[in-house]
Amino acid sequence: MAANSSFMVDRREIEFVLFEYLKIQKLFDIPYYSDHSIESVGEMLTSAITLCNQYLGPLNKVGDRIGCTHNKETKEVTTPPGTKEAYKQFVDNGFLTLSDSEQAGGIQAPGIIASVFMEIFSSANQAFTMYPGLTKSASHVINHFGEEWMQKFCIPKIASGAWTGTMCLTEPSAGSAVGDLRSTAKRGKDGSFLIKGVKQWISGGENDFTENILHLVLARIEGAPAGIEGVSLFLVPKFRIDKNSGKITGKNDLYCISLEEKMGIHGNSTCLMSFGDKDDCQGFLIGKENQGINYMFLMMNEARIGVGLQGLGQASVAFLNAEGYAKERIQGVDISAKKDASNPPRIAIVNHPDVKRMLLRQRSIVEGMRALCYTTALMHDESEHSTNEKDKKRAHGFLELLTPIMKSWCTDMGFYSITQSIQTYGGYGFTKDYPVEQLLRDSKITSIYEGTNGIQALDLVGRKMRMEDGQIFMSWLGRHGSFVEKNKEHKDLSQEMLMLGDYVSKIGRGAMHMSEIAKKGNKHAAILNAYPFMMAFGHTIICGLLLEQAVLACEKLSNSNLSVNDKKFYNNKIKTAKFFTHHVLPEAKSFLASVLSPDISCLDFEF
Amino acid sequence: MAANSSFMVDRREIEFVLFEYLKIQKLFDIPYYSDHSIESVGEMLTSAITLCNQYLGPLNKVGDRIGCTHNKETKEVTTPPGTKEAYKQFVDNGFLTLSDSEQAGGIQAPGIIASVFMEIFSSANQAFTMYPGLTKSASHVINHFGEEWMQKFCIPKIASGAWTGTMCLTEPSAGSAVGDLRSTAKRGKDGSFLIKGVKQWISGGENDFTENILHLVLARIEGAPAGIEGVSLFLVPKFRIDKNSGKITGKNDLYCISLEEKMGIHGNSTCLMSFGDKDDCQGFLIGKENQGINYMFLMMNEARIGVGLQGLGQASVAFLNAEGYAKERIQGVDISAKKDASNPPRIAIVNHPDVKRMLLRQRSIVEGMRALCYTTALMHDESEHSTNEKDKKRAHGFLELLTPIMKSWCTDMGFYSITQSIQTYGGYGFTKDYPVEQLLRDSKITSIYEGTNGIQALDLVGRKMRMEDGQIFMSWLGRHGSFVEKNKEHKDLSQEMLMLGDYVSKIGRGAMHMSEIAKKGNKHAAILNAYPFMMAFGHTIICGLLLEQAVLACEKLSNSNLSVNDKKFYNNKIKTAKFFTHHVLPEAKSFLASVLSPDISCLDFEF
Repeated sequence: MAANSSFMVDRREIEFVLFEYLKIQKLFDIPYYSDHSIESVGEMLTSAITLCNQYLGPLNKVGDRIGCTHNKETKEVTTPPGTKEAYKQFVDNGFLTLSDSEQAGGIQAPGIIASVFMEIFSSANQAFTMYPGLTKSASHVINHFGEEWMQKFCIPKIASGAWTGTMCLTEPSAGSAVGDLRSTAKRGKDGSFLIKGVKQWISGGENDFTENILHLVLARIEGAPAGIEGVSLFLVPKFRIDKNSGKITGKNDLYCISLEEKMGIHGNSTCLMSFGDKDDCQGFLIGKENQGINYMFLMMNEARIGVGLQGLGQASVAFLNAEGYAKERIQGVDISAKKDASNPPRIAIVNHPDVKRMLLRQRSIVEGMRALCYTTALMHDESEHSTNEKDKKRAHGFLELLTPIMKSWCTDMGFYSITQSIQTYGGYGFTKDYPVEQLLRDSKITSIYEGTNGIQALDLVGRKMRMEDGQIFMSWLGRHGSFVEKNKEHKDLSQEMLMLGDYVSKIGRGAMHMSEIAKKGNKHAAILNAYPFMMAFGHTIICGLLLEQAVLACEKLSNSNLSVNDKKFYNNKIKTAKFFTHHVLPEAKSFLASVLSPDISCLDFEF
Repeated sequence: MAANSSFMVDRREIEFVLFEYLKIQKLFDIPYYSDHSIESVGEMLTSAITLCNQYLGPLNKVGDRIGCTHNKETKEVTTPPGTKEAYKQFVDNGFLTLSDSEQAGGIQAPGIIASVFMEIFSSANQAFTMYPGLTKSASHVINHFGEEWMQKFCIPKIASGAWTGTMCLTEPSAGSAVGDLRSTAKRGKDGSFLIKGVKQWISGGENDFTENILHLVLARIEGAPAGIEGVSLFLVPKFRIDKNSGKITGKNDLYCISLEEKMGIHGNSTCLMSFGDKDDCQGFLIGKENQGINYMFLMMNEARIGVGLQGLGQASVAFLNAEGYAKERIQGVDISAKKDASNPPRIAIVNHPDVKRMLLRQRSIVEGMRALCYTTALMHDESEHSTNEKDKKRAHGFLELLTPIMKSWCTDMGFYSITQSIQTYGGYGFTKDYPVEQLLRDSKITSIYEGTNGIQALDLVGRKMRMEDGQIFMSWLGRHGSFVEKNKEHKDLSQEMLMLGDYVSKIGRGAMHMSEIAKKGNKHAAILNAYPFMMAFGHTIICGLLLEQAVLACEKLSNSNLSVNDKKFYNNKIKTAKFFTHHVLPEAKSFLASVLSPDISCLDFEF
């Protein structure tokens, strides 16, 4: 940990999840990933950690304190000092294109590796990481759906770090309801379009560290249907691009009107953008007309996984800092000693039971999130590159099912975990002398952007759980069910298996109850408790994954040649899983109480 | 609501709790309070609301954005523009001395009225309200324990608004463990003391709007015992006071070293204070030597009630703003309409089930906190001024029992409620265009200061519940038990009564379980789950109080002459109580799961 950075990472735990639990080395047998190995992943990990210690970590506090500034006359945005260099280092070290195909300039690393880095980079600096994160998404859309000239000229520019990208969906009066957007596209003579509209919350919408910015803008072509069915996607560059040479030909008619004043992520320029103020904003259609939302969803699904990883990364670094502080901070005496000695020794606060409780709570939530995030990321790789069609399909179904849960659980539970990190610090946690208050402020946005967690719950209950008549959902529950069945007499974990099994049944019953309400036709009642259901499901899934890890840790412990560190590590994995099962999982009970409650009187409440 | 202020208050609800539910008009029969009436309280309420609309509310955003600044050379602090005028208006309108005795310059208003105003002022401006709040506490200590000259000269200066006061307990390495403080007091020739030390987190430690500041400082007299038993309390004025004339004679040897950089409450100057840098800091003993902590506890208990009220005030104003926004913000279409119409009408987000759920959650938490806070405040009045000794003693016991719960429940649940307010706003909630992000930042400190919520839980479980061999605790549980017994066949609330009764028994069992662990001698295990127990108890108490209100609302509804507004109000009270019982109370189940869990492995976790 560099002195001017609060960046910390639990590399041992990350490697355990990757190589011992998920055994991602199996991916290296897939031809697409055959260039990679445990060793090469280890080298990349070292390189990512170095990047964080040297650039992203130190930039985090600077970004928060100095933030971005907007020049009202030139409309230019100045990003925090160090951003340009950090972006260059990020790109030069290969982290932007890591998981891209070789044709697209990447090294075809499994997406799960990119996910691990997303976590690590978010631990170091969420605001900064959003610049390459959105750029990568934009690049993927162009690569999948863009015209040949876009792929030929834009992708290499992005890959080299010279150009960045953004996602322009939201407008002042079209947030969650994207289909209500008012931006328009008028057909030009040369096949291009004239874009006109105002877009809001555009992360990285303007910057001073790249030569051009490719905005992916949703707009409605004149005459297109109302609503989401009439929305098309356009590539709208900050500087015009000659389609034949790829050269920049001049400024396009778009600019940043102002920056949002936010609670956190000050290092990222969140812009209110004007397109076509002078009726001269050139845009190029991506893919087919009126199919914009489908292309955007490709970005969105990736982005949602990315947001879940942000929740993990921030809660993880907050926990590691709080844990470190608790081991150093001396305060008070041992409660057992109080009455025996006249001047008992002062102890580190990590020894106070309530502090232990708070720390283990954070730890179990963080490790639970990591288990879920990496599991989901692995599904993504398998769904794209598995050589077995059945596996591919199965992984795709699970990926769809888990995405809204991962996004919401990691951002809401992550936020609550960070509040516990602050509480661990006491008064110091409320000050800017320590990193946790910034982490809390930065992380609050994650439950909102890329679809609020309420929207995620609707996606889960209204769409994902119904996929294939509920078979995917049932099949996932079955994973936990078989695991419990197999281990119900486990010598160290039988009690926890019993508890997990109980909650798996409860989730099944909750789902059935919701579907019965839906059948009765009251749509409001059917979705009223989608959020509590999603959280209960999340708790259960995570308990299942943590107990899988605990069973594995028990097996590892039976090896008598373990190092002291490994012994401690595996013992702690078991305790963490037990803590989660006994002290976090029961929260699912209260969420399910809402799901099963006959009280729906809030629906006719007169506000 | 003034345009430049986010201040809002639910006056109807406040009056319901005061006059219909708690019937505080019975206090006016007590001779000490006989000058007051429902009408006079109503006038004061109007005056308080006007003060908030005109001064405190508009100052809130200014205080947050501009904050306090410290001049490193002069050591002076500049408070946000408008603070001086707001303080003058606050004092001139009688809110500083409201509940003080007539001898002390007050009007002997019941403390519960002062509590209501504390809530209202916190809704308008927490950072500002801390200046008069701590001044009032300091004044009470001086009035109770100070020497005659202090009472004669200091109290009137405070009452007039010319001088303020502070509490100086914490030091950089003595936070929760106050007894470990290092500040010293050396006997001077004239009976005064020379104070030396550094104090941290001193709210209002320096200001530019009053002529003098009276610091109440804890320090150890040379030769006094170690630990908390050797701590004495001193009056240490910023400017020296002549004991014979009360006149200011010159600057004392103390100054503000620096301001803390905080996450919120920027309008309040949180100072690192130096006392006796030149060995010439004059202080005067308050009360007896080595009794300092007892006097401080008088302030502390009041302060804890005040912090609970801050939690209430902030969650209340966040909810009211979120509710107002949800009724105005148009987004999306009704989920029932989606497939029927080609262009269905767009609706206010308050009509989306998930938003209703979030709003009712906030509302039920806010009204629950208000029920608990006002009930506790009433106990305070009765414990001090009741004419019946038995009532007095009983009220005192309940006050002691409820204080840590009120402080913690209102600050933690208040904070979570504000996160729901942000979520209701969506992206806008994360920006400085709306008040909720500031409320979240400001409110985070409440779970920490005046004793962290972990400390409160230890106070509850280790001390308060054991008072009189547990009789006070059992007697409070009995209140809810008898209520359930009486109403178990209530025509509208029988199901909720059953649920409450079940949780009351559960709390009893939880308490018994904890006391059995304690008897076995494992002190760590005995207090490990003090916090979850406190929260479960808080949920149960609040459910009990809200259901008492619901029963009353049912009675009121049987009156056929009700206005439309009253009908709506009482119906909403019932729905809110039901919502709490079905959707918030069950969280107690998960807290109790921790209390009853056999898993205490976190105690030997190797961090």
